[in-house]
Amino acid sequence: MNARIRAATKEDCKEISRMIMELAVFEKMPEQVKITHEELERDGFCQNPFFECLVAEVPEEHKSKQGYTVVGYALYFYTYSTWKGRSVYLEDLYVMPEFRGNGIGKGLLSKVAEVGKKKQCVRLQLSVLNWNSPARDFYAVKGAQDLTVTEGWHFIRFDGQSLDDLANEAPKD
Amino acid sequence: MNARIRAATKEDCKEISRMIMELAVFEKMPEQVKITHEELERDGFCQNPFFECLVAEVPEEHKSKQGYTVVGYALYFYTYSTWKGRSVYLEDLYVMPEFRGNGIGKGLLSKVAEVGKKKQCVRLQLSVLNWNSPARDFYAVKGAQDLTVTEGWHFIRFDGQSLDDLANEAPKD
Repeated sequence: MNARIRAATKEDCKEISRMIMELAVFEKMPEQVKITHEELERDGFCQNPFFECLVAEVPEEHKSKQGYTVVGYALYFYTYSTWKGRSVYLEDLYVMPEFRGNGIGKGLLSKVAEVGKKKQCVRLQLSVLNWNSPARDFYAVKGAQDLTVTEGWHFIRFDGQSLDDLANEAPKD
Repeated sequence: MNARIRAATKEDCKEISRMIMELAVFEKMPEQVKITHEELERDGFCQNPFFECLVAEVPEEHKSKQGYTVVGYALYFYTYSTWKGRSVYLEDLYVMPEFRGNGIGKGLLSKVAEVGKKKQCVRLQLSVLNWNSPARDFYAVKGAQDLTVTEGWHFIRFDGQSLDDLANEAPKD
């Protein structure tokens, strides 16, 4: 499979938005997706973008059953470890089912690692669902550590009312 | 306790660096800290900073036993959810032991929530160690969800050799 991996442009946001929904369906939480392609355009292609994105594109003759040529994406951003410094976080890695098994996911992942190394990042991090064994195995085989298992790190989130409540209680300057 | 919370400046990096080490000692991994205050200055106070930081400062008359007036910090950065959009991630929240119980941690946390809301962030996220019950309880009481428990999210990390290997296998353009 002759897939080309390239930096996403603003014009790819509709395709990325479509694949974000496909991934959420796989993750069994499609009702969670509230993002629109307009928001992706605004937040990823501004002065200080909130994320960067790579897409995998196949030639027209290999397009998907439904006619798509953009068949995978990796969306990531930069984070920071107060122990080690610059890091890159892979928020989403997705390849359309009919294009799996061709090394496209691996290519996207490696490219994110390369981009991160160029920015002197010393870590590439991501999250997986515990029932998603194919993904967990995929990362483990490539040498990743599961820090929830080895060190006991848990993910915590404030959103909605709990976030509003916190913000409203902020000390005044 | 009359602690003032303010945005960190480049001049605070030595104090932040000291507290990063204090926090790592508490987390039982002090040997993990490789960051220097020079790196904090470079990465946090450049054109597109990798993080932002708040510090809590007490008046001179309330300084610590060892003479410190900067007694807590919250270091955070912006991330992105492909389901919900802009998010803020709290990497570290720390208050020196002798200053705990005065609402300083709560003030720092709320201030990060406020800063995030101003940037239209819809989530405030962070990680805790599973044995750190005081922290887990602190966040739970304020309405945070533990997503490792409720949805099964695990943290995955590539670093060192596994990151180098990945980057070296990136497809050529």
